[in-house]
Amino acid sequence: MSEQQRGISEAKLNFRVRYVECDPMGVLHHSRYLPLLEMGRVELLRQAGWRYRDLEAQGILFVVTKITINYKRPAKYDDELELVTRKLRQTHVRIDHAYELFNMETRELLCTAESTIACVGRDGQVQAIPEFLGGR
Amino acid sequence: MSEQQRGISEAKLNFRVRYVECDPMGVLHHSRYLPLLEMGRVELLRQAGWRYRDLEAQGILFVVTKITINYKRPAKYDDELELVTRKLRQTHVRIDHAYELFNMETRELLCTAESTIACVGRDGQVQAIPEFLGGR
Amino acid sequence: MSEQQRGISEAKLNFRVRYVECDPMGVLHHSRYLPLLEMGRVELLRQAGWRYRDLEAQGILFVVTKITINYKRPAKYDDELELVTRKLRQTHVRIDHAYELFNMETRELLCTAESTIACVGRDGQVQAIPEFLGGR
Amino acid sequence: MSEQQRGISEAKLNFRVRYVECDPMGVLHHSRYLPLLEMGRVELLRQAGWRYRDLEAQGILFVVTKITINYKRPAKYDDELELVTRKLRQTHVRIDHAYELFNMETRELLCTAESTIACVGRDGQVQAIPEFLGGR
Repeated sequence: MSEQQRGISEAKLNFRVRYVECDPMGVLHHSRYLPLLEMGRVELLRQAGWRYRDLEAQGILFVVTKITINYKRPAKYDDELELVTRKLRQTHVRIDHAYELFNMETRELLCTAESTIACVGRDGQVQAIPEFLGGR
Repeated sequence: MSEQQRGISEAKLNFRVRYVECDPMGVLHHSRYLPLLEMGRVELLRQAGWRYRDLEAQGILFVVTKITINYKRPAKYDDELELVTRKLRQTHVRIDHAYELFNMETRELLCTAESTIACVGRDGQVQAIPEFLGGR
Repeated sequence: MSEQQRGISEAKLNFRVRYVECDPMGVLHHSRYLPLLEMGRVELLRQAGWRYRDLEAQGILFVVTKITINYKRPAKYDDELELVTRKLRQTHVRIDHAYELFNMETRELLCTAESTIACVGRDGQVQAIPEFLGGR
Repeated sequence: MSEQQRGISEAKLNFRVRYVECDPMGVLHHSRYLPLLEMGRVELLRQAGWRYRDLEAQGILFVVTKITINYKRPAKYDDELELVTRKLRQTHVRIDHAYELFNMETRELLCTAESTIACVGRDGQVQAIPEFLGGR
């Protein structure tokens, strides 16, 4: 039985902070962390063999229903970051993820976050997560 | 015959520069002007009685094929701006617009721009601009 | 004694959802709510007589240390939204805000959120909130 | 004499199109190309041995004064792109760059662009490009 089947999957993804993502304080704007977390979820999916783009084409969409972020230290322009994304739990229709964002050079923890996503159809109505994605 | 019917339309739109739109220099990032221009085009359309959202729902989409922007003076965080959008010319499938962006308080001209948009269908293929939008 | 002096202030702010803020699902991307909340805080401050821009110029900065958002219903392109921002509580160095985002036409509640901001200096170090902003 | 010393430098940079960068048409929003071009310029500089972040810290800033973009084909969500950035010419205070953006898989040319940047100080006033950056 693989790690992914047991649900202990984890994805690592690296980013360099873009100039356009930084605000007048010279740091990654707090709203700009969310697209990074999204990329972490997509990477976790890719690692399991699925492209989110293909899922959407099949009418299997995921929407964020809740996010909590704790900002601990700023990420500065041109810093290299590492995001670790883990799946925490999965129900019939929802998946919870946890995230840790590190400065790659200093290894300082910059941010922790948790999110809940729900599986919906093209009409936005909640639907069961398909079996091939671990749904029951 | 109204000005709009003769195609001499012009739309004015006001914005306050958002913190998230500013970069480490404390000014509106140069990429952030383009969404403002887009809103100018949408407003010009609204003034003529059409919502771009409804057009898209009918399969009438417009894509930008060319943009030229001249940045003259920076727009700072929290500045109030006024965008003037004009239709320059229209062909069977394309519309050209010209833009001037002003600082509302000082009346300084911050930026001039020109763009070309093309009418496409949901498949991305170029199609004739409908008659009700001034197409022939 | 005014409501604001007693700290029961509330700010309302209206937005039209921009095309650039919408994702392939045609709705306001979940990361795009955070800049709106930020504008709500700035408006609350403006209502109390202060411009955040001037505070920053004086070395009084506020950074977000925590945000929790609950997404209830999507906001679609071109929808008009109303954001209600309230100050919940204030300590020596921190302020908590609560937010409700509504669709202006349907009056549906789209999203609720809570945030914590901390007062820092130009060096990023936490500092006491000045007395004129309600600090003790 | 190296290519860079002769000023025939060229930088290649790869990106994966992010979900947040795509609009309701499911493609990279036209404003989102500009931050990519900016990253191309930064990479060209890094290749020559300089970090833009360090230059800014020394009071050597570059601002965009003009951009022209021709959009040829859309970039879709999750596509891998390759940006080629070249320095075209350099005056006392300005540098012109040219860009080509390709779909990495199909090798189709998606976009060409040209930009002019000017060297300014912290006060926003134009200043001579330093000798170590090829200024005379």
